[in-house]
Amino acid sequence: MKIQPAIMSGGAGTRLWPLSRKARPKQFLNLAGETSLFQETASRLSDGGGVFAAPLVIAGRGHGKLVAEQLAGAGIAPADIILEPCPRNTAAVAAVAALWTARAAPDALVLLAPADHHIDDAAGFREAVLLGAKAAASGRIVTFGVKPVRAHTGYGYIQAAEEISEKVFRIAGFKEKPDEKTAQGYLDAGGYYWNAGIFLFSPQAMINALEAHAPDILKGAGGALSEAAPQGGGLLLDEGLFSKTPSDSIDYAVMEKTDKAAVVAPVDVGWNDIGSWTETASDPESAGHMLEACRNVTVRSDGPVIGAVGVEDLVIVATGDAVLVARKDKAQDVKKLVEELKRRGREDLL
Amino acid sequence: MKIQPAIMSGGAGTRLWPLSRKARPKQFLNLAGETSLFQETASRLSDGGGVFAAPLVIAGRGHGKLVAEQLAGAGIAPADIILEPCPRNTAAVAAVAALWTARAAPDALVLLAPADHHIDDAAGFREAVLLGAKAAASGRIVTFGVKPVRAHTGYGYIQAAEEISEKVFRIAGFKEKPDEKTAQGYLDAGGYYWNAGIFLFSPQAMINALEAHAPDILKGAGGALSEAAPQGGGLLLDEGLFSKTPSDSIDYAVMEKTDKAAVVAPVDVGWNDIGSWTETASDPESAGHMLEACRNVTVRSDGPVIGAVGVEDLVIVATGDAVLVARKDKAQDVKKLVEELKRRGREDLL
Repeated sequence: MKIQPAIMSGGAGTRLWPLSRKARPKQFLNLAGETSLFQETASRLSDGGGVFAAPLVIAGRGHGKLVAEQLAGAGIAPADIILEPCPRNTAAVAAVAALWTARAAPDALVLLAPADHHIDDAAGFREAVLLGAKAAASGRIVTFGVKPVRAHTGYGYIQAAEEISEKVFRIAGFKEKPDEKTAQGYLDAGGYYWNAGIFLFSPQAMINALEAHAPDILKGAGGALSEAAPQGGGLLLDEGLFSKTPSDSIDYAVMEKTDKAAVVAPVDVGWNDIGSWTETASDPESAGHMLEACRNVTVRSDGPVIGAVGVEDLVIVATGDAVLVARKDKAQDVKKLVEELKRRGREDLL
Repeated sequence: MKIQPAIMSGGAGTRLWPLSRKARPKQFLNLAGETSLFQETASRLSDGGGVFAAPLVIAGRGHGKLVAEQLAGAGIAPADIILEPCPRNTAAVAAVAALWTARAAPDALVLLAPADHHIDDAAGFREAVLLGAKAAASGRIVTFGVKPVRAHTGYGYIQAAEEISEKVFRIAGFKEKPDEKTAQGYLDAGGYYWNAGIFLFSPQAMINALEAHAPDILKGAGGALSEAAPQGGGLLLDEGLFSKTPSDSIDYAVMEKTDKAAVVAPVDVGWNDIGSWTETASDPESAGHMLEACRNVTVRSDGPVIGAVGVEDLVIVATGDAVLVARKDKAQDVKKLVEELKRRGREDLL
């Protein structure tokens, strides 16, 4: 059975400002090592011993050339690059991926995965995908439950119900980002997993579920795909139709409503959603930075040298035109600075 | 009686890195408003209703043109610009100033003042100078004791003894930078003043005191001045002779030893030694900076926009090639970063 990777690469990555910018959001940055998260993801989904088809990439309208360049840099030829004229959240992307695959490879399963996740153990991840494939082939919409290693308050959780097949469970419930006490309760209770935001399904199963639970999204995304035209290095969805498509997450629009949901769990592959600066690695001192009497300080720079004196629990990020200093437990609020820049019309810094 | 200002402008200002650089140390930066501290100082010592002669400036060898430009910008014609081939601390500068004035204006008193101090009340400062002039004319070496407004640990203190004339006292002792408890003790006791590092003396009184207490400094500086030659926009002291001159402060070399020392006190003119970032004003938010849920944060930038989230008691300074983040009570230690840059050979950042 073929698996059709569909890489969701339309995110803005505002919480990783000021390195992450409109023109080059975080998934295209070399945050750790010599490749970007997008390239890592594409490579992970290209190396399955014949299991994975060439990837479909769904990205923002301004990023067609960047996607093509980064794929070329990773030695990967895409099946297609679809460009969104505006962001419409993940349900619309799932619809586009399902409809595109139904036409291009109707017998394949779609593996819908965000471009900006880091996974240590790519082989382990592929094993988890293959575990879920049988359930997906039988009409289930399969998600992946990451083994929680701490009471993380930045992720959603999935509560598993009874086992259907080896390591594949029905779902008792989806839980939104919890507070710390609730998160600790999930860990203590067991049977709760981090929602990795990765989905495996047959095109028809997703189309049926959208038809049942979010028909406007299916119709809007379907129309936008039918009217799509080559532009900007990819196939640009029709702006008039896509902009009118409701914006919702696949979790809300489909997963919480369908009785076809299932979860592969526990997935223990060193998964990490690089959602904020606290999840990134620090530039080393060999990059020229200087930490004098500091503790638990993460520094990142695309050029300027950073010097810190007597501070703790901070992230410090520098570019030639902007500097961020944030307490680590407030790193999620960096997006507020980006909103403020938008209000001020500082397009040059977005 | 004429007063000959001699402006000491040879400081490196390393504690104000990264804005303060070798090529443009802090005294030449527009840290508050549209003029530099050097320009402020030169203007303050030029506007005395005929009391002040055209200033003598003593600066680092690389800054001749910068001094000339900044004086021109302030509409001031200097009497002379003397350049130091290497820094040799304030005693050597006092020797040069005394010897130069003994030749050029033997009847004038020398007012030796650092270029990098801020004074709110220039008229009040000139009044204090005139109060000290009579004592200086009679052979005393007069210093200025600033009324302490808090238990500052970054300044030296002068303990006044008995009054000689109106607001002019003999000196009971010079106190090095105290710890906080000692500083508070000085404030509680009264009669202790911040040592402003400003001196008023007749050329001959300083020459005599150096002859008695620091003859090598007098001889070295005198030789370097005799052999000085025009170069780099000023009169460059002879490098061979000046580099062999002992490096010492005027306080240690002369003031603590001579029985001619006196202090004008209390001087209450809004004096401020801009010695570290904590003493500077913050860039306003109108400069584009963003402080989200922050408290007591000072930001300065020569270009990059600064965004801070959830932090307190910090100074954040940004240039295009370097960023500083320091806890305010550790701002003095910024010089350690500069030393580290020197060790690493990062001349581009010094």
